Amino acid sequence: MSDGLLFERLAGGVTAPKGFKASGIHCGIKRKRPDLAVIFSETPATAAAVYTTNRVHAAPIAVSREHVDKGSLRAVVINSGNANACTGERGLADAREMARLTAEALGVQLGEVAVASTGVIGVPLPMDKVAAGIKHAVSLLDESDFDAAARAILTTDTVPKQIAVEIELKGRPVRIGAMAKGSGMIHPNMATMLAFITTDAAIDKEALQHVLSRSTEKTYNRITVDGDTSTNDMVILLANGLADHELLTLDDPELQQFASALDYVNTEMAKAIAKDGEGATKLIEVKVQGANTEAEAVQVAKSVAASNLVKTAVYGNDANWGRILAAVGYAGVDIQPERIDVFIGDVQVAKGGMGIEFDEERAAQILQRDEVTLLVDLKAGTEQAVAWTCDLTEKYIEINASYRT
Amino acid sequence: MSDGLLFERLAGGVTAPKGFKASGIHCGIKRKRPDLAVIFSETPATAAAVYTTNRVHAAPIAVSREHVDKGSLRAVVINSGNANACTGERGLADAREMARLTAEALGVQLGEVAVASTGVIGVPLPMDKVAAGIKHAVSLLDESDFDAAARAILTTDTVPKQIAVEIELKGRPVRIGAMAKGSGMIHPNMATMLAFITTDAAIDKEALQHVLSRSTEKTYNRITVDGDTSTNDMVILLANGLADHELLTLDDPELQQFASALDYVNTEMAKAIAKDGEGATKLIEVKVQGANTEAEAVQVAKSVAASNLVKTAVYGNDANWGRILAAVGYAGVDIQPERIDVFIGDVQVAKGGMGIEFDEERAAQILQRDEVTLLVDLKAGTEQAVAWTCDLTEKYIEINASYRT
Repeated sequence: MSDGLLFERLAGGVTAPKGFKASGIHCGIKRKRPDLAVIFSETPATAAAVYTTNRVHAAPIAVSREHVDKGSLRAVVINSGNANACTGERGLADAREMARLTAEALGVQLGEVAVASTGVIGVPLPMDKVAAGIKHAVSLLDESDFDAAARAILTTDTVPKQIAVEIELKGRPVRIGAMAKGSGMIHPNMATMLAFITTDAAIDKEALQHVLSRSTEKTYNRITVDGDTSTNDMVILLANGLADHELLTLDDPELQQFASALDYVNTEMAKAIAKDGEGATKLIEVKVQGANTEAEAVQVAKSVAASNLVKTAVYGNDANWGRILAAVGYAGVDIQPERIDVFIGDVQVAKGGMGIEFDEERAAQILQRDEVTLLVDLKAGTEQAVAWTCDLTEKYIEINASYRT
Repeated sequence: MSDGLLFERLAGGVTAPKGFKASGIHCGIKRKRPDLAVIFSETPATAAAVYTTNRVHAAPIAVSREHVDKGSLRAVVINSGNANACTGERGLADAREMARLTAEALGVQLGEVAVASTGVIGVPLPMDKVAAGIKHAVSLLDESDFDAAARAILTTDTVPKQIAVEIELKGRPVRIGAMAKGSGMIHPNMATMLAFITTDAAIDKEALQHVLSRSTEKTYNRITVDGDTSTNDMVILLANGLADHELLTLDDPELQQFASALDYVNTEMAKAIAKDGEGATKLIEVKVQGANTEAEAVQVAKSVAASNLVKTAVYGNDANWGRILAAVGYAGVDIQPERIDVFIGDVQVAKGGMGIEFDEERAAQILQRDEVTLLVDLKAGTEQAVAWTCDLTEKYIEINASYRT
C-alpha cells in the first residue's frame, strides 16, 4: 500500500496487467543502444490518449490520433533516435508504414496499432532498418520483456522509467503498468515526453479518456524542464479488460479508485521524468498552497518551476528565496506579495513577502538532497497545486550545445 | 546619420542634452566597484516612465511612480548592489529617504527626485553609506561625467551601455542621451533592466509618456534573457525643454521624428543589454515576418527568443532549425507549420516546415559571429516583429549557481 491508497506496488512495468506482452530491441536507428519497442495486447484494448499541444506535431501523432479515435488498439510501436517530425508527406507515410508493418507481423488490423517516435527532428526514418526491426521485435514479444521495452524508448534519459500497481475493482484484482521517457529536452533536438500505460481493467472508452485527460493535467502537464514543448509528446493508455470485472463507465463510483491509482502511476512517472531531465542532479517539487483557485495555484507553481533562476539556485544549493518570490510575482496571478510565505523543505525563508532570519546551514543541507521541496503559501485562499522540475546545470548546456556538431 | 533616419550619433550619454549633469561614485554598497549615480537637470523636466509588471515590485518603483505621476522631475538617484526589494515598510522608507537626501543636497523638492535600485534582493540598504554617497555624488555632478554614471548603475554587466543622438525638431537641434544596465538576470539575485533617457526636447507630459510607452513595447519589452521578469525594471525619460523649440504635443506631426530617434536609442540600448546577458557570447536577433498581426509576430519572436534549446544551439554554433520550428509551434499562435521558412543569417535551413539541404559550413560560420539573426517567415500575412536575446552558456549557470554561496 502506498500513501494510504488502496493499491499495491508490483515489480514490473507495462506487462504487469494480464494479456500484455512487450519487447525492445536495437534495429539500427541509433548506433548501439536499443531503439525499437512494441507493446501488444492479446485482446483488443480500449484506448485513450493525450497529445502534444504544439502546432508543429510529428507524423506519428497524426497516425496515432486517427487510430485511437477509430476504435480499439492491439499494439503500440515506438522508435527512439528519430522523431519523424518535420518530415512532411514522407514522414506521414513512414509512420503509417510502421503501423502497417506491426499490424502485419501481429496479424491485426493497421488501424489497431498506434505509433510513437522520439529523437532527431527533420530526418527521414531509415525504413529498411525499422521494417526489419519491427519483425524482430514482434517475434520477441514476451510478458517478461517489459524492461527491454522501457529501455528501447529512451533517448538521453539515464534510467528507464516504469511502474506497476495492483488495485481492486468490483472485487477483482486489476493491474496498471506504465513506462515513460523523459521530457526536459531529454532529447537534445527535441524535448519528447512519452508515456505508455497498460491495464487489464475493463473501462469504456469515454470513461477511460476522461480519467486519462484529468490525470495527465495533474501529472505530466505539471512537469517542466525548460518550457520547450515537444512536437512528439504522447501519452497512451490501453485497457484490455482481461481482469474480467464488470465494465466501468463514467458514472460508476469505482472509477474513482482506478483514477486514483492512475494518478499515482502518472505522478511517479512524471517525477521520474523531471528528475532525469538533461543534466539534472535533483528533482524540485514546487508546492503552492493558499491560492484562490486551483488554476491559479498551478500557474504560480509552474512559473516557479520554469524559472531558470530558481533552477540554477537550487543547483547551487542556494536558499535564494528572492528568485522564488520574483517568479511568483510574474506568474500572471493577482497575488498579494506582502502575504506570501516561502519554505525550502521545512525551513521558512520568507514571511509576509520579506526575508526572515533562517538557519542557512540547514537550508543548504536540504538543498543538497536529491529531492527538494519548495513551498509557497499565497495566504489568499484554500486551493493548492504541485509542479515538478529539475535543477539547471552546466551539463544541460553541454548536452544541448554540442549535440549535432 | 544612421539607418537613413534624420539623426546623428553623438559621443556621450545622458549629459549630451543641454542642462543635464551626472555623476557616479563608489559609496560602499558594493565592495569595490561604483554603486551610486545621480542624473540632474538644471531645469524641471517633464517625466515619463515605464515600470516592471511583476506583482512583486521593489520599493523604489513605488516611490518613483508617485513622483513621476505628480509632476516634473529634477533628478534621478540610482544605486546598484542592492535592489531594495522585498524589504517591506523599511524599504519604502529607505527609498523615500534616498529621494529626500538627493533633493536636499540639490536644493529641490522631494517629489522632484526619482529613485532606482538594482542588486541583491531582500537585504536592507546600508543607509549611512547611501546618505554619505548621495552628498558626495551631488557634489561631483558634471556635464562630462556621463560615463561614471553609466558605470555606477551596473551589476554583473561587463560593459557600460550608453548612447547619444542629435535630431532636429521645429528647426532646432535636439539631443537624446541614454544609459542602461542589463537584464537577462544580469544581477544574479534578480534580473533588473534599468534605462535612463534624457533629452532637451520640449514635449508635454502626455506626448512624452505616449512615445515612451510605445517605444518600450518595441525595444526593452522585446528582449529576453531567461524569461525572469525583475521586481525592479524601470525606464525613465526626462525632457527638460532646453533645446528651446516650440512645445510638441500629441497631435504634432514632428513628434514622430522624436519618436523615431527615441526608438533608435532604445533599440540600441535593448540590443546592448541582450548582448551583455549573463554568460552570453553573442546577440541573437529573431525576426518573424509573414504574420497575420504584429502581436502574433511578437508572440512567435519572443517564443523563439525565450527557448533555452534555441539559445543553447546558437551557443554551440548548431544550425538546429528543428528547435526553432518547435518554439514557433508552441508560441500559442495559430500558425500553419507546413508553410514556414526558416533562415539562419542568409542561409535558408527549412522550407515549408521541413528541413532542406543547406551549406552547413556557411551556417556554422554565421553562427560563430557575435550577432546572429534568425528569420522565421510564417507565410500567412504581412506583419513582422523582432525580438532579441543572447545565447545560453555554462557561464550563465556558473554565475547564477554560485552567487550567494
